[in-house]
Amino acid sequence: MYQAKLEKDIRCPLEYGLDVFGGRWKSRIICVLAHQGTLRYGILKGEMTNITDAVLAQNLKELIADGIVRRTSFDEIPPRVEYNLTEKGESVVPILQTICRWSGAYHREISGLSIAQCRKCDYTAEKRS
Amino acid sequence: MYQAKLEKDIRCPLEYGLDVFGGRWKSRIICVLAHQGTLRYGILKGEMTNITDAVLAQNLKELIADGIVRRTSFDEIPPRVEYNLTEKGESVVPILQTICRWSGAYHREISGLSIAQCRKCDYTAEKRS
Repeated sequence: MYQAKLEKDIRCPLEYGLDVFGGRWKSRIICVLAHQGTLRYGILKGEMTNITDAVLAQNLKELIADGIVRRTSFDEIPPRVEYNLTEKGESVVPILQTICRWSGAYHREISGLSIAQCRKCDYTAEKRS
Repeated sequence: MYQAKLEKDIRCPLEYGLDVFGGRWKSRIICVLAHQGTLRYGILKGEMTNITDAVLAQNLKELIADGIVRRTSFDEIPPRVEYNLTEKGESVVPILQTICRWSGAYHREISGLSIAQCRKCDYTAEKRS
């Protein structure tokens, strides 16, 4: 199992933020949970695209460790585990929406980008309605 | 030389933004240029920390291709090349500052983060003054 280095070389608060939510998968997980609320693992995986279990599990583990995602386990048979955003996780959403709006302003330059492929994004939703 | 794939798998405007300025080095280059204005290569490299020429050159190349950084070459002897932010690059700065402020709000949780190490960040500058 991949083990993160204990001390990351973080020189600036900016790098902490980008490390916590800046990756493609982490930002997508946050977007999906922001849009859909509480989800079970299987549903969350279905909402992501082309992600392997190993990558999703590792990203969820890091998001949980950084206090962005909450994992709730229910003592049922069959066992039920749910994921949702913490308050800290919710506070990331406006930043991701700002990045989305910025990108949208330049989307005409992006070759091959199909805005319609994004079903989670408030920016796109605004454009559609 | 590393050759980027022609078509990136970008599914969401958010991913375009994170791809363009979300990396550690790219965000740091933008911060340095936002703070210092126009810089020659050697000075820019000196302002970054622990970056190799190969990594800096590749990141600059991508930032130029994405319209974030402008490269100006002067026909002098010795040759002079300068880098500064484009208008599109300047428009990224408020987003990076927002991420910085968000991170700052949580910086007490960050083990080993020395805020004083960041000399470029408006957030830190505010705190210092």
